[in-house]
Amino acid sequence: MYTAEIITVGDEILIGQIVDTNSAWMARELNLSGVKVNKITSISDNAEAIKTALSEAEQSADIILITGGLGPTNDDITKRVLAGYFGSIRMIVHEPSLKFIETRFVKRGIAMNELNKQQAEVPDCCTVIPNNHGTAPGMWFEKGKTVCVAMPGVPSEMMKMLPDVLVLLRQKIALPEIFHKTLMTYGISESELAKKIEIWENALPENIALAYLPNIETGVKLRLSSYIPDGKQIIEEQFNRLIDVLGKYIYGYEPDTLESVLGELLFKKGATVATAESCTGGRIAHRITSISGSSAYFKGGIVAYSNEIKTSVLDVDPADIEKFGAVSSEVARQMAEGALKTFNADYAVSTTGIAGPTGETIDKPVGLCWFGITTPNSTKTFSYNFFCDRQGNIAGASSIALNALRLQLIEL
Amino acid sequence: MYTAEIITVGDEILIGQIVDTNSAWMARELNLSGVKVNKITSISDNAEAIKTALSEAEQSADIILITGGLGPTNDDITKRVLAGYFGSIRMIVHEPSLKFIETRFVKRGIAMNELNKQQAEVPDCCTVIPNNHGTAPGMWFEKGKTVCVAMPGVPSEMMKMLPDVLVLLRQKIALPEIFHKTLMTYGISESELAKKIEIWENALPENIALAYLPNIETGVKLRLSSYIPDGKQIIEEQFNRLIDVLGKYIYGYEPDTLESVLGELLFKKGATVATAESCTGGRIAHRITSISGSSAYFKGGIVAYSNEIKTSVLDVDPADIEKFGAVSSEVARQMAEGALKTFNADYAVSTTGIAGPTGETIDKPVGLCWFGITTPNSTKTFSYNFFCDRQGNIAGASSIALNALRLQLIEL
Repeated sequence: MYTAEIITVGDEILIGQIVDTNSAWMARELNLSGVKVNKITSISDNAEAIKTALSEAEQSADIILITGGLGPTNDDITKRVLAGYFGSIRMIVHEPSLKFIETRFVKRGIAMNELNKQQAEVPDCCTVIPNNHGTAPGMWFEKGKTVCVAMPGVPSEMMKMLPDVLVLLRQKIALPEIFHKTLMTYGISESELAKKIEIWENALPENIALAYLPNIETGVKLRLSSYIPDGKQIIEEQFNRLIDVLGKYIYGYEPDTLESVLGELLFKKGATVATAESCTGGRIAHRITSISGSSAYFKGGIVAYSNEIKTSVLDVDPADIEKFGAVSSEVARQMAEGALKTFNADYAVSTTGIAGPTGETIDKPVGLCWFGITTPNSTKTFSYNFFCDRQGNIAGASSIALNALRLQLIEL
Repeated sequence: MYTAEIITVGDEILIGQIVDTNSAWMARELNLSGVKVNKITSISDNAEAIKTALSEAEQSADIILITGGLGPTNDDITKRVLAGYFGSIRMIVHEPSLKFIETRFVKRGIAMNELNKQQAEVPDCCTVIPNNHGTAPGMWFEKGKTVCVAMPGVPSEMMKMLPDVLVLLRQKIALPEIFHKTLMTYGISESELAKKIEIWENALPENIALAYLPNIETGVKLRLSSYIPDGKQIIEEQFNRLIDVLGKYIYGYEPDTLESVLGELLFKKGATVATAESCTGGRIAHRITSISGSSAYFKGGIVAYSNEIKTSVLDVDPADIEKFGAVSSEVARQMAEGALKTFNADYAVSTTGIAGPTGETIDKPVGLCWFGITTPNSTKTFSYNFFCDRQGNIAGASSIALNALRLQLIEL
């Protein structure tokens, strides 16, 4: 099995200013491609540290992925260090990259300076991997049997460049057959899930590995992995057996999300949806509209943060707010019904709760949220209590709302 | 200056299943305590890998923090490896830890097994750091001038144990003064910024390090770091010199965000704001409401994704949508004005654009967004073209809108 080391360069990692999410992304993608990651190292923007890390990695890994330090400013030294390490004689201008950078600046109507132009310079001993989403090109170096690929540290740029790197790797080395598939569940806890699928899990064939991946926004994912030739078929058969066991807890397979699955259901039905959000503050609308094509089924949403707006825009009865409180079944019901009417939609969902950390009352703790789901015929309400911080409570409540809409749609 | 290395142990990191947030936490805490982190290494639950990492770290660092692999199951081998590495003769039961574990099990009504009891065993050569939030005690080893502290990998347990570790460190070694400060800018690119502050940058005192940290959502951050006694004052003086150079590009210092700064401005003025979002789909409202206390100034928002809603809820003239298109200055203007009126707010911001990847027309490319900013007296509109993917375009447009509101508020 081929092995890899990941090196991330940047003082901002070593002083704890940012969390190194790039490493996890690269590690996962390498793993999915059948490459074993031995080690992840984060080092400073310092020439000696970079050289030492490269030389240590070279001794034990077939593949080195290095990110960061490729920006236009003086503190970004990775490119110069790589040039020296891999024996470059001079820097050359990579014309396609220069053209791309120039076009980018022209489009934006910004003047280009010397630093920007220098972004297109690369060591003469590397192969360029185009960066179509930023100004720092990727660089592929070879030394003996080791491949070293440098990518920008900006996560979105690295994430878009990595598939091209994996294609090139596959051209150079024979990566093993590997197959992963991830089933998405929502509405069941990790331990409940483990109980429910215990028999199935114990009967899994050898060479098929199971992982539980819980997350407040996506629910618990179940990933099966195989490293054998007919693994794809076995994994699909195994997952099919779970359909009866887990039923509606299953909402899809990676890369499905609650919002993408909901979008497909709405699109197929030719139905539309609207949102009325209080404590989730626009997060549900944001998730629905993060799906390209959502304009076909998303009519719109209201973030009704104040009672005044709940009344004036969504037509919630102020007497009910007074009587039951804004965080109540009655208000959730009227918000959902108000959104349905205002937006002339087929379905609507509402949230009203206490995201925290302040706003708690004796009978209404932080994390409590009431939900309303309405159709032209009926409205349901229900509540849930999260025990997270503000961001977690908002994320969790938005997922519950999306999942409730999904269940409503598959029930009909 | 004292130096540290951080080692995190766990296969789940190397297969990319979890993001290693522990390292960032420990790195930040060490830095704030005046310890320079040279390197962060993530390795597998493998004895050889752990020994190699310890021995490499020992050569260059005064302090080694190692987390993970202290659990009760067979794959957790860190404790055994540490015992061997630091020359332990035998494992001994740490009675206070055993009592704590026993009490914990009794409280939860669960039977304790042999594996749980073994959690209280530690190498005879270490000093125990009690874990009051879990079953794996922390362990303090010394070898020559190096201190090595092992902590559990569960983030909440590590986070609660680390302050005790830092107290012990301060008892053993004299930690220096250290200071970091990060200036937040928005609306200027990294290279433009570098040009504008070139003279200032070149004149920075020795021992003061500068880093550029660009991000589509936060703008470009400038971080100054010092490791000298009067660094705090020097850094503050240096940043003060930038106020004239960068003016309104500066929106604050970390941990300020565009949404938190906007919130403070609104709160101080006693003013309120509303949003009317098309392409940003609720992201602006979500960011404003991610700030605790935002209900004091956020009236609410409308996600007007369809033309129908722009007309019916925000009172945009359908003839203008027909004539100029939904992505236009005229529609942005009427959306902002409609939101101001609907929500009875003092300020309103609107977005209408093409988030992509579809929806492009000849004269309106993906990434184009029109913005409207309105007050009771006047409305401004302007456009910007992003060149990112859908998520990037949405993130960027939401930052531009928040920043435009900020500029509107500081201009008055």
